[in-house]
Amino acid sequence: MTLDAVRDALIRQEDTIIFSLIERAKFPINSPTYDESRLSIPGFCGSLVQFIVKETEAYESKAGRFQNLEEHPFFPDDMPPSLVAPYDYKLVLHPAADSINVNGKIWDVYFKELLPLLTEPGDDGNYASTASADLHCLQTFAFRSNSLSVDKNDLQAISKRIHYGNFVAEVKFRDAPQDYEPAIRAQDRDALMKLLTFEAVEATVKKRVEKKATIFSQEVTLNDTKSKGNYKIDPPLVSRLYDEWIMPLTKHVEVEYLLRRLD
Amino acid sequence: MTLDAVRDALIRQEDTIIFSLIERAKFPINSPTYDESRLSIPGFCGSLVQFIVKETEAYESKAGRFQNLEEHPFFPDDMPPSLVAPYDYKLVLHPAADSINVNGKIWDVYFKELLPLLTEPGDDGNYASTASADLHCLQTFAFRSNSLSVDKNDLQAISKRIHYGNFVAEVKFRDAPQDYEPAIRAQDRDALMKLLTFEAVEATVKKRVEKKATIFSQEVTLNDTKSKGNYKIDPPLVSRLYDEWIMPLTKHVEVEYLLRRLD
Repeated sequence: MTLDAVRDALIRQEDTIIFSLIERAKFPINSPTYDESRLSIPGFCGSLVQFIVKETEAYESKAGRFQNLEEHPFFPDDMPPSLVAPYDYKLVLHPAADSINVNGKIWDVYFKELLPLLTEPGDDGNYASTASADLHCLQTFAFRSNSLSVDKNDLQAISKRIHYGNFVAEVKFRDAPQDYEPAIRAQDRDALMKLLTFEAVEATVKKRVEKKATIFSQEVTLNDTKSKGNYKIDPPLVSRLYDEWIMPLTKHVEVEYLLRRLD
Repeated sequence: MTLDAVRDALIRQEDTIIFSLIERAKFPINSPTYDESRLSIPGFCGSLVQFIVKETEAYESKAGRFQNLEEHPFFPDDMPPSLVAPYDYKLVLHPAADSINVNGKIWDVYFKELLPLLTEPGDDGNYASTASADLHCLQTFAFRSNSLSVDKNDLQAISKRIHYGNFVAEVKFRDAPQDYEPAIRAQDRDALMKLLTFEAVEATVKKRVEKKATIFSQEVTLNDTKSKGNYKIDPPLVSRLYDEWIMPLTKHVEVEYLLRRLD
């Protein structure tokens, strides 16, 4: 696995993230989906979206996903045990990676910051479909920020992902340990952040995701002139999502990982 | 709800179907996902994709989805009961609609016919992600063929869908009962199929979905010349999917519904 291969996977992943945003933007904000007082399921306290994410993680856990300690559920409490045979995960990363978990941040950014910008106000009653669309967005973001499927040819490999920022950091570190070691020994976050930041690459990513959003969110009709300028999501919002949230969160994971890389 | 409103919803739904196909086509066929002898979860007998669809339906059932008798799970056995308060569904359709279930056909068409054409041969080990992508495709197809969210403003409305072909048929019938009644009384499937078929509309749908597939599945780069002609899915396959499977299945539901409309 090289940094180029990793970058190619991330570029492909941009499309998935944009598709998931377009699908969520079909629905208005639908705030009852997030109202913890509205759902009355005995034995469950929370909103519909929390219920759906928690239940999905429960069956993923039964299928063995969280046997891999590098996988972090959004709702770790009362997780049912894995029902599949244990799988001997090959450790690619420094064990410090296990302790880096940005799920809480992903959850907050998504619901508090992005969603109000992504969706129209209103309520069309489709709360289950809304929650499913949210789940899909959260999973694509968590994938982008945390993880990458790398293992192969084994059923339990289904759950083999690694924290993505960690992985990027590991590859960068292995490419040039001499550049990173002084900053790691000094535990200098700012210096590490500087070493990890490639402004030209980030500018390219922002331009590319905006272009993708323009193409993928257009309304396609057989009559070309009819729908010009009609987009299902606001293309600059996608650029902003990467600029303000996704790329900083990935770099945050990278810095946290590197700080512990020599422990 | 008019036929125009219904058609607009279906046109928007085309994008969702195409996105779901593109996301599935990221992975090769990954046949262990469908191998019933491979999974060893105690108390469960079936493939990984069956496990994931069944578990998803189980939590959707807890959230009340199948309180609506017009909703059909793919795996109706051992479905846990709803945990939410009963909801008084307003009946839009003739009760005959409850007995029309094309899930088995959707399942077969998807796995036996479409999937081998959509995916590359091979195995990359990402079986859980593959199964999730399959689930998403199945749900978008079942939505297209069977159902439409129509209810609003109530939590239980999350699960209020109606069989979509049924609904199209009901709207068409109400628009011109005099055209349909003789064929219904004669129980003449062929005559009903003829009345329901608008070849010009179908030709437009086929052209439009192929155009959408071309646009949505292109590889977007900042350098425009680089990726010309690189598509993640084969655009004519989407046209064929509609022509051979989705539109005929929808019309099958319409005919079955109309045959019982005067009972």
